[in-house]
Amino acid sequence: MSLPTTTPEPIRIALGERSYDIHIGNGLIEAPESWAGLPSSADALIVTNTTVAPLFADRLGAALAARHRRVLRVALPDGESYKDWQHLNLIFDALLGSGCDRKTILYALGGGVVGDMTGFAAACFMRGVPFVQVPTTLLAQVDSSVGGKTAINHPAGKNMIGAFYQPLRVLCDIELLDTLPQKELAAGLAEVIKYGPIADAGFLAWIEVHLDDLLARDRDALAHAVRRSCEIKADVVGQDEREGGLRAILNFGHTFGHAIEAGLGYGQWLHGEAVACGMLLATELSRRLGLIDGHLGERLRALCLRAGLPVQAPAMPIERWLQLMRVDKKAEAGDIRFVLIEDVGRAVVRGAPDALVGEVIRHGMAA
Amino acid sequence: MSLPTTTPEPIRIALGERSYDIHIGNGLIEAPESWAGLPSSADALIVTNTTVAPLFADRLGAALAARHRRVLRVALPDGESYKDWQHLNLIFDALLGSGCDRKTILYALGGGVVGDMTGFAAACFMRGVPFVQVPTTLLAQVDSSVGGKTAINHPAGKNMIGAFYQPLRVLCDIELLDTLPQKELAAGLAEVIKYGPIADAGFLAWIEVHLDDLLARDRDALAHAVRRSCEIKADVVGQDEREGGLRAILNFGHTFGHAIEAGLGYGQWLHGEAVACGMLLATELSRRLGLIDGHLGERLRALCLRAGLPVQAPAMPIERWLQLMRVDKKAEAGDIRFVLIEDVGRAVVRGAPDALVGEVIRHGMAA
Repeated sequence: MSLPTTTPEPIRIALGERSYDIHIGNGLIEAPESWAGLPSSADALIVTNTTVAPLFADRLGAALAARHRRVLRVALPDGESYKDWQHLNLIFDALLGSGCDRKTILYALGGGVVGDMTGFAAACFMRGVPFVQVPTTLLAQVDSSVGGKTAINHPAGKNMIGAFYQPLRVLCDIELLDTLPQKELAAGLAEVIKYGPIADAGFLAWIEVHLDDLLARDRDALAHAVRRSCEIKADVVGQDEREGGLRAILNFGHTFGHAIEAGLGYGQWLHGEAVACGMLLATELSRRLGLIDGHLGERLRALCLRAGLPVQAPAMPIERWLQLMRVDKKAEAGDIRFVLIEDVGRAVVRGAPDALVGEVIRHGMAA
Repeated sequence: MSLPTTTPEPIRIALGERSYDIHIGNGLIEAPESWAGLPSSADALIVTNTTVAPLFADRLGAALAARHRRVLRVALPDGESYKDWQHLNLIFDALLGSGCDRKTILYALGGGVVGDMTGFAAACFMRGVPFVQVPTTLLAQVDSSVGGKTAINHPAGKNMIGAFYQPLRVLCDIELLDTLPQKELAAGLAEVIKYGPIADAGFLAWIEVHLDDLLARDRDALAHAVRRSCEIKADVVGQDEREGGLRAILNFGHTFGHAIEAGLGYGQWLHGEAVACGMLLATELSRRLGLIDGHLGERLRALCLRAGLPVQAPAMPIERWLQLMRVDKKAEAGDIRFVLIEDVGRAVVRGAPDALVGEVIRHGMAA
């Protein structure tokens, strides 16, 4: 296998006084340099879920015991369907029940749901306390832990209530992926694949060559995929932290994907699975709008099939799809905005006629 | 009555790209210059309460109809006891139920509770939409609508869940105070009085001379009190937006005051009433720590009595007071921090021995 050499230097997210580093490597939890330079505080709270807690919470707790007088824990139930106010409040209850103050540091140990909820809790608790991301899924390492988007869901839409709030640091420990279920590994790969069409044709080609290594959890391959994904995301977020424009391209596949998640009920499909299917729909829409030919769609479909990701859109009435997409955060005055591909490595955000979108969905449901 | 001339120029809160103006005057809602320069958007949502809605919502709605395609409304129940997640969610339900997008502008029409909740909803909805403050109480005009502190309460403490999130503009329309109940006018005066001891001895003397005019709702006197209060707050917030240090002095009286509100149950005492009583306790604590002599305490007590504000601390066990104050946001590692007065016009934030604090509370309960 021929891989670009990965270096141990962290990736910098350049956001002025909110800048921070992403560390990528093996065994980061136990490595002293992972924690160097972070503030110490009397209290720390590890926020995790009931699946991850028995795997890694003791290791993280032991590492933090040297840095904090008290290391508290709260374990949320595992899954997107718990990403709501009721469960966010469990974090506030833990903080206030233990007398934590506004110097307390929160540590998010888990996947995207834990990271989003911990970040939003940190943004809101006493109007803002610091937090650190320790993502334990591939999806969280390559996407959701980086960039400061935090949120909970509302029955009417995904991630509707949240904040832009940056962590102090992100630790992507590749070792932690050893225990990840294969279905979740594949879901994470959907977000890795995403970076190719929107930003880096060479990376898409690299993924096509190395997909089997990634699926076999080759650590060097995974480290490269995480690093290149984070580099692209760091570059985009550094240019547009609050999604005034460019950043929206990171939502390639997500407009259709969010409709799938909300329409079927959160937790029915994994987020990455919905994004995979959404990318195929957005690529087909790009083709029907005359932006690209059919080749990219075939390549993405082949990758999804190899990774075990869904390629057939779930059966929902077209009007329901459109209704769900109209509450997407990119929508303006009821007009749905899609991230579309103009060329492999280049995305654009624009609208499309409802009738054409409906045809694309019908085609996807029959795929 | 001799008053400094009040000028129509807005007061600027200087916070870089988050800078904004406070307009102070009569009839601002109908004045076109009040709205000049604000972004227009398809949708607007007026957030108000059931007391204020019948008084002013039609006037505001009419003024906004020229600027927005749809002007929606939501009226929350009136009172501090409703400043919780459940009622915050009514705002999100209104926004999502009507298909609002992230360009929608929220207008807070009401007192401190409406302003805090609207601001926090704006901070969180789709990770941040713009909002405008139209405060209808004296307390909100001189304090809570200015400076970007937004929050809801948690059963364990006041304003525990929130954000620093600045409005686009604040419109302090003095006319709107005509219908304010006298008890609420007095509660607002507590926050006006506050600015004297912490920042401006001359303003304290001015209040002593003009208190009867203020209680009689003389518009010039009220306009001056609002203006000088906002000037002081603008100066402090401009130096320390996120309460890294200096800004904490604005919480003079609030450590004791929050304990009163949480201990008795939100809504039992008005916020300003609790702050008035809290200022007297903090002043007495300053005296017992040897920072000042007894003269300031006597002046503040006389002002509170004239305004009809409570001067006797409510009966709660000392341990309960201390427990409630330990969850104050200024506390660090369980040590309560008080805003104390070193000289009239100069405040300091520091701790004090529990035993001494207990003596001060006992003295206050017997007052």
